Amino acid sequence: MQLAMIGLGRMGANLVRRLMRDGHECVVYDVNPEAVKALAAEGAVGVHSLADLAGALRTPRAAWVMVPAGLTGQTVFDLAEHFEADDVIIDGGNSYYRDDIDRAAKLAEGGVHYMDVGTSGGVFGLERGFCLMIGGEPQIFSRLEPLFETIAPGVETAPRTPGRSGEVTQAEKGYLHCGPNGAGHFVKMIHNGIEYGMMAAFAEGMGILEKAGIGRSQAGQHDAETTPLAHPEYYQFDFDLPAVAEVWRRGSVVSSWLLDLTATALVEDPELAAFSGRVSDSGEGRWTVLAAVEEGVPAHVLTASLYERFSSRGESLYADKLLSAMRKQFGGHAEKKA
Amino acid sequence: MQLAMIGLGRMGANLVRRLMRDGHECVVYDVNPEAVKALAAEGAVGVHSLADLAGALRTPRAAWVMVPAGLTGQTVFDLAEHFEADDVIIDGGNSYYRDDIDRAAKLAEGGVHYMDVGTSGGVFGLERGFCLMIGGEPQIFSRLEPLFETIAPGVETAPRTPGRSGEVTQAEKGYLHCGPNGAGHFVKMIHNGIEYGMMAAFAEGMGILEKAGIGRSQAGQHDAETTPLAHPEYYQFDFDLPAVAEVWRRGSVVSSWLLDLTATALVEDPELAAFSGRVSDSGEGRWTVLAAVEEGVPAHVLTASLYERFSSRGESLYADKLLSAMRKQFGGHAEKKA
Amino acid sequence: MQLAMIGLGRMGANLVRRLMRDGHECVVYDVNPEAVKALAAEGAVGVHSLADLAGALRTPRAAWVMVPAGLTGQTVFDLAEHFEADDVIIDGGNSYYRDDIDRAAKLAEGGVHYMDVGTSGGVFGLERGFCLMIGGEPQIFSRLEPLFETIAPGVETAPRTPGRSGEVTQAEKGYLHCGPNGAGHFVKMIHNGIEYGMMAAFAEGMGILEKAGIGRSQAGQHDAETTPLAHPEYYQFDFDLPAVAEVWRRGSVVSSWLLDLTATALVEDPELAAFSGRVSDSGEGRWTVLAAVEEGVPAHVLTASLYERFSSRGESLYADKLLSAMRKQFGGHAEKKA
Amino acid sequence: MQLAMIGLGRMGANLVRRLMRDGHECVVYDVNPEAVKALAAEGAVGVHSLADLAGALRTPRAAWVMVPAGLTGQTVFDLAEHFEADDVIIDGGNSYYRDDIDRAAKLAEGGVHYMDVGTSGGVFGLERGFCLMIGGEPQIFSRLEPLFETIAPGVETAPRTPGRSGEVTQAEKGYLHCGPNGAGHFVKMIHNGIEYGMMAAFAEGMGILEKAGIGRSQAGQHDAETTPLAHPEYYQFDFDLPAVAEVWRRGSVVSSWLLDLTATALVEDPELAAFSGRVSDSGEGRWTVLAAVEEGVPAHVLTASLYERFSSRGESLYADKLLSAMRKQFGGHAEKKA
Repeated sequence: MQLAMIGLGRMGANLVRRLMRDGHECVVYDVNPEAVKALAAEGAVGVHSLADLAGALRTPRAAWVMVPAGLTGQTVFDLAEHFEADDVIIDGGNSYYRDDIDRAAKLAEGGVHYMDVGTSGGVFGLERGFCLMIGGEPQIFSRLEPLFETIAPGVETAPRTPGRSGEVTQAEKGYLHCGPNGAGHFVKMIHNGIEYGMMAAFAEGMGILEKAGIGRSQAGQHDAETTPLAHPEYYQFDFDLPAVAEVWRRGSVVSSWLLDLTATALVEDPELAAFSGRVSDSGEGRWTVLAAVEEGVPAHVLTASLYERFSSRGESLYADKLLSAMRKQFGGHAEKKA
Repeated sequence: MQLAMIGLGRMGANLVRRLMRDGHECVVYDVNPEAVKALAAEGAVGVHSLADLAGALRTPRAAWVMVPAGLTGQTVFDLAEHFEADDVIIDGGNSYYRDDIDRAAKLAEGGVHYMDVGTSGGVFGLERGFCLMIGGEPQIFSRLEPLFETIAPGVETAPRTPGRSGEVTQAEKGYLHCGPNGAGHFVKMIHNGIEYGMMAAFAEGMGILEKAGIGRSQAGQHDAETTPLAHPEYYQFDFDLPAVAEVWRRGSVVSSWLLDLTATALVEDPELAAFSGRVSDSGEGRWTVLAAVEEGVPAHVLTASLYERFSSRGESLYADKLLSAMRKQFGGHAEKKA
Repeated sequence: MQLAMIGLGRMGANLVRRLMRDGHECVVYDVNPEAVKALAAEGAVGVHSLADLAGALRTPRAAWVMVPAGLTGQTVFDLAEHFEADDVIIDGGNSYYRDDIDRAAKLAEGGVHYMDVGTSGGVFGLERGFCLMIGGEPQIFSRLEPLFETIAPGVETAPRTPGRSGEVTQAEKGYLHCGPNGAGHFVKMIHNGIEYGMMAAFAEGMGILEKAGIGRSQAGQHDAETTPLAHPEYYQFDFDLPAVAEVWRRGSVVSSWLLDLTATALVEDPELAAFSGRVSDSGEGRWTVLAAVEEGVPAHVLTASLYERFSSRGESLYADKLLSAMRKQFGGHAEKKA
Repeated sequence: MQLAMIGLGRMGANLVRRLMRDGHECVVYDVNPEAVKALAAEGAVGVHSLADLAGALRTPRAAWVMVPAGLTGQTVFDLAEHFEADDVIIDGGNSYYRDDIDRAAKLAEGGVHYMDVGTSGGVFGLERGFCLMIGGEPQIFSRLEPLFETIAPGVETAPRTPGRSGEVTQAEKGYLHCGPNGAGHFVKMIHNGIEYGMMAAFAEGMGILEKAGIGRSQAGQHDAETTPLAHPEYYQFDFDLPAVAEVWRRGSVVSSWLLDLTATALVEDPELAAFSGRVSDSGEGRWTVLAAVEEGVPAHVLTASLYERFSSRGESLYADKLLSAMRKQFGGHAEKKA
């Protein structure tokens, strides 16, 4: 099939490569002409404007937008200016699912179809394949399914789930039509929310291991502002954290891709010296919490994992100062220095 | 009545003053002779050793130990060397209730009674009275009740609870025999756990108010690592936080002593410039969580308020670094600088 | 001054009474004619339509809307049909502050002013006064200030904050102009968020006290699915919870109006037999979390207190079932019955 | 090598089978003679008392205790009666790491060695191998290493971590000598704490997906006790949860063994009809929180996942009732029925 890709960053470029490898024809565009040139050299048709892009595609057209979240909306509507009825615009970025619903409704006025495709796989997607969570009209999904099948990892990348037999489903191949517009990014949003929670579980657990030798240094250390450790003899450990991450990779209940990555990170940099501990968050974690709150469903873990990222960036400073100020008021406690 | 006080810090000295004001006779001891001299000048009998202290008391003796938590156990047992059957040792500090149970059992071997008295009131107790949560044998509680009644605030310091009538109970006077040994400090422990939660509620809420003008500076600011604020027009506020704390003091649902102190702190230092935000915790908050876990009772709020204090002191640093390291692995995300 | 009140439920009616007591003139309207009749009997001018209400007011008019949150928007706009330039509509209900901003902009097109007034005080406001958090144009605030001053508790209802001297500020009287439209309900929203957190702190703490006798029944009780209690001897308590709530009311750090109410509730119904434990939430707690998330400020405690309410209504059921299903998969664990 | 196994439940029996398959010699004992008979039929040497077991082993003896947590301590000490200096007792169960430290010290008085071996793998361990986290003296670890190597999954069960090359380490084979006594169960404890957090992340996320159609039924439904859903049009989804779990198994960031098990569970029982949602917890999750608190390291996520299990069993009921009671006090709110 033929597909246009708009946005040739890490993700967009790898999608194009994966598609071309499997025989699909790609028309590529980016605001950076070098990025276009690079992929043209690998066999793509490079274009230098959205108008040219529309011109280079056979109808009904299909174009995949893979640009930073803040630019997606404008790009979609700019592109739609050049598209006509029955063409399809795919948003493969990290859009808020509500924007998908609104955009789809607006594009529908001109007969243009919209698909929201949550795409997971990161820098490994080129080889590993991308997991695709798709929202939009069923007949448009069907039209584009050969593209999705190419991009997705394929059934052979994991053993079949016990109880599943017969014909392999789309989900087993690594892509899923989740429902109408918005459904794809909703499922992707929750995927990322879960990802935050899993990451925090590993980080907190490793953090407890890392400090398990506290009894060696704190024995007897205390004052009016510090609780003495009741039993320093039980905190005398000195764990080899890269080895711990490694041993869990085989046979344990926590084995997972995130653990594999943790093990890799700890081999590369056992002291994590390259990091200052300011953890970014990029939207989906927040939207997951908003959805939980609006649905009235508790999400203690997913929310805490988001808030820990806020705290890592110093965002609790005012509250912390106020706590110290209150302690000083009622107990005369001066803040203890670092 | 006659009572000895061991430990003449802020709390111990004020207890002595409050007792003497009401006509009780106090024998006082501290490792610092100046502290003894100061209270002797106010009418107390100063002594310079535990042996002298025991000698200065009429039997059955009663002595109140008010020393830093880490020293209480040793002081109690040292004192017991000089006491005899039917004497009473009171621990008014912030002991772990389990230590009370163990100490009481040990002292009982020699016939010495033990009372654990959780004491709340902070630097305001001299005028405001101290709230007393008491554990120990009922007949010893009764013997010492005149002392407790003097130390406590008295029924007139708050309106009677609707539905309570007739004779005023001990709880309404501000002291309560909560049960056998350990019961006093158990109730005090939970009191402090609740205090942590309430403080965090105020701190978090004020923190959200403090940042409610974020839309003025962040409009349009975003990149691949930052979610743009969807609606900066809704975050254009510039709240006067000292005034907000003040207005809540009258008629609102959150009116409380902690709010009064917050209002005072914000009048003194509206920018909280004197504080760095490193918040200490001193035992009871931790023990509250241990009790919740052992009882199998959820305590999300009390625990989160404790963990926020840990985080304020940088104790999540390892975990935060690991999160950044994982993000780099799967997404190639570099850490964003402050 | 003259004020119209629309909505004569518990809150609206008490506001009218408090205003009339202080010599203000009230025009009252409610969809329920009985409610109108009752207040007319107390001296208000009763009207039976919004048109009549507009006719009964001198210009520039002022009307306070105090209807359920879901009806406020429609009522405000219906009323505006009968109002003219320079009239004022006050929303005293529990509106989302964003709706205030939007409504104010819309009303401004016709020259009608809008004030958002977060009102706290509950059923006690008639006697205790209401705490008012106010958003809107400064000159309109000034015009209506005599009304706010009457409704608020007054400075004498609490001791002045140390450090405040000289002329008494509006905040000290119990009302505050917090900023432009939306500011009043924003501050009220955070007030309620804090209220949720404080309530949860008390509830969790009392819950731990309530189960502190677990060692008496569970000693030795365990199986492959249950951790035995390591030290049942430390969980042998039987606390008198109404007395504990009472004793904390005087001299303790947690003394607060919510504690007073807790003490009252426990005197009325010591076993809480009248309650099933399904806890409602009515908007502000949710909006507080949304604000924290959008501002990127951690709010572990406020959020957990909201989620606990969701859980109390069974909203974690699906998640809980899934946890049991996972445990069965990896460990063959059957669910343990109640 | 020769090893005795005490306790022939699911885990113990599978360990024996895995050892015998690889040529090791096993002496087996269980309080249930049928369990002994079954494994004897598969080639093990069955014995019917601890004395016989000691007699059947060559010195220095090695015995693995795999009994319910509540019985481990007694079994270890009973066995030690029959053992002599330089023999080894291995605890492969879910012991608290502190008990390991205490037991090892006690056994050392008689020269008997103790190893704590945290064992993960569940019902799949026979085929998949068990992940082993080991604490004890280095020379005893070395003596028994051939047994551990057989039990562990082996390096080939996962791709090598990038950056690891040269000789394969023990961790890469799936077993790790983590440190002195207690270290094995400490690492296993944290493993399970992380497991709780990961499980909760999936459960919460799926729970949000499950309720994402709330807008279809709640449009317009609200009252004074319920916030209306502001935008029901954004909650119109009807997700196929078994398919969602399946699609994430390939190429996504959350791919993991727990996700595989979730997918299996949802194929078996898409409505989770077999489960009531009462989730057990069996010790390690609690101990993980205790360690976090004692170390002063925040663990919001791991703790919340534990508390959610408590709540699932109704353990927040008292707190929830108290919240409803407070709401009734200040707002006159009656509890809303289910």
